[in-house]
Amino acid sequence: MTGPYLAGVDIGGTKITVSLANFKGISVKVFQEVRLEGSHTAIPEQVDFLLEYACEQIGVQPDDIMATGVSSCGPFVKEDGIIQLAAPNLCGGLAKDRNIISNNWTRIPLEAVLSGRWSTLKIENDAVAAVKAERLFGACRGEDNVVYVTWSTGIGGGAYVDGRLIHGKNGNAPHIGHIYLVEDGPQCGCGNFGDMESLVSGVAIARDYGGGRTAEDVFRAFRSGEGKANEIISRALRNFARGLASINAILDTEVFVIGGSVFMNNIDILLPGIEEEFYRSFPILSADVDIRPSLLGAYLGDMAALSLVMPEDWIKKWQDNRPWTHAPLPVILDKQGFN
Amino acid sequence: MTGPYLAGVDIGGTKITVSLANFKGISVKVFQEVRLEGSHTAIPEQVDFLLEYACEQIGVQPDDIMATGVSSCGPFVKEDGIIQLAAPNLCGGLAKDRNIISNNWTRIPLEAVLSGRWSTLKIENDAVAAVKAERLFGACRGEDNVVYVTWSTGIGGGAYVDGRLIHGKNGNAPHIGHIYLVEDGPQCGCGNFGDMESLVSGVAIARDYGGGRTAEDVFRAFRSGEGKANEIISRALRNFARGLASINAILDTEVFVIGGSVFMNNIDILLPGIEEEFYRSFPILSADVDIRPSLLGAYLGDMAALSLVMPEDWIKKWQDNRPWTHAPLPVILDKQGFN
Repeated sequence: MTGPYLAGVDIGGTKITVSLANFKGISVKVFQEVRLEGSHTAIPEQVDFLLEYACEQIGVQPDDIMATGVSSCGPFVKEDGIIQLAAPNLCGGLAKDRNIISNNWTRIPLEAVLSGRWSTLKIENDAVAAVKAERLFGACRGEDNVVYVTWSTGIGGGAYVDGRLIHGKNGNAPHIGHIYLVEDGPQCGCGNFGDMESLVSGVAIARDYGGGRTAEDVFRAFRSGEGKANEIISRALRNFARGLASINAILDTEVFVIGGSVFMNNIDILLPGIEEEFYRSFPILSADVDIRPSLLGAYLGDMAALSLVMPEDWIKKWQDNRPWTHAPLPVILDKQGFN
Repeated sequence: MTGPYLAGVDIGGTKITVSLANFKGISVKVFQEVRLEGSHTAIPEQVDFLLEYACEQIGVQPDDIMATGVSSCGPFVKEDGIIQLAAPNLCGGLAKDRNIISNNWTRIPLEAVLSGRWSTLKIENDAVAAVKAERLFGACRGEDNVVYVTWSTGIGGGAYVDGRLIHGKNGNAPHIGHIYLVEDGPQCGCGNFGDMESLVSGVAIARDYGGGRTAEDVFRAFRSGEGKANEIISRALRNFARGLASINAILDTEVFVIGGSVFMNNIDILLPGIEEEFYRSFPILSADVDIRPSLLGAYLGDMAALSLVMPEDWIKKWQDNRPWTHAPLPVILDKQGFN
């Protein structure tokens, strides 16, 4: 081994990815579907298992992991300052549609379970971790006022204001998917009617089109000139830009970095449309704002988690060498834990 | 004289107030309608004149003013880091309706003019200064995550996140009046359609009622049980609460402090209604948030400006003695400058 090592954990609505890295780059990556059954400690226990599994793969002892960064979907709540997940896409007890998630969890004690085993632990909302990674290694290096927005199955955000990563009381700032944009709009998984996520997320685009099509299907139909797809994408695009304008009114930012699969797979359509609509809003606030695609793209999940705990000397080396671009392919574990 | 002195300047859409204070309290207050004619330096020159006039009133030399805090309506733009006002309610060149403001200014060089004369100068957006005052002396003392919202002729905001006053790139964060809340709504003075200010401000309430009535007239009609007033106030109230929910999604706050004449004159109607609607939004984000009226109320303008430059030892003394509650009545100057 070439230690010491850092661990990065990325917890999404459908999968968990764990990566271990040393000074030179990412050594191993393990990937498994997220477990949504059993006790409310199932997910932290799965993370624990995946971390151990990754250690075994490269012959590292868990005690040799010097710090662990966890980037997770939210929102978070805190009990005595300890982070729990209260995410409607993981906790069946919070989901609007109980048929999708069969568990009845309302909280996942992520920090309490993991901190017992993995001593230097830093947990952040996934989009908050993402803005840190983009600012260190990606599209907005060194900028003081920057917002990262993920346009994917859902909508998320992370922000630096005045050079500082903002958190708010429970680490949920800026939880941009849940800002209102229209009156009496469709219902979001969070319960709100007409918020940004309910209008523009991948789920919303698929829902508006209907017939069991995915958001990608709708973009394909748009590209082939279909009127219905054009109407749905145009409205989503307009509302996405209105959402950015609202966030900009609140945070007075310099740069938006946009990532997420819906956006990254359709930059050619979406970026010019967003810009056209965004700069129509209150020109004094919008004029000097830059809108850029994520530079880390497919590497963002791992890099977000690792960025949370990366020491200064590693950061400098990684900025120069960009080792994430030649990370190994992930080991994919099936649900039983065998690859 | 009992020096040293601090100066506070409050620049609004209709008036400018200057106050001078020593360690013991506010010594003099001068008040004049804002001058919207002449050169684009008219307002900073008027501030300069009022500061000198106030000094004369109590026999203080301008050089004895140790620092000057300026709380001004915005938004701001910066040229080479120097603050200029780009406020549509002062600059005729930016106003939607040129009949209201006859000048053709697009920028007011506030900092450049004042900093030549008043050496230790601190300029902030009025609602940003207000949240500082409320956090030092008012409704949210010592809270780390707090948003002040003014509900008045317009809508404004100021915020602490993670214990720090946020500014953004031009000091306009959080410019909450310009977040979108409905699609294809009425037009705001800033040009946006359907933003918070266009829907709920005092101007919007009066406009929706029509017939030349003021917002206060509409509230009177509401109190007498009139259906049309009820409909207008109820919708404004609902959208105000939706605006707070959007701000909370972005800033993950602990406390909202609400001030401004529309709110303060109608707390009995508005506070319960805002609470009812606000807590309906995404409960995980909204549940632990407190909504409180401004405690400084009528004293907020002076205290906001003075708070910007007040030294630590004064703050402690003022927190104990609350001298603003027995400030002298203002000297009111007419447009020619004679009282």
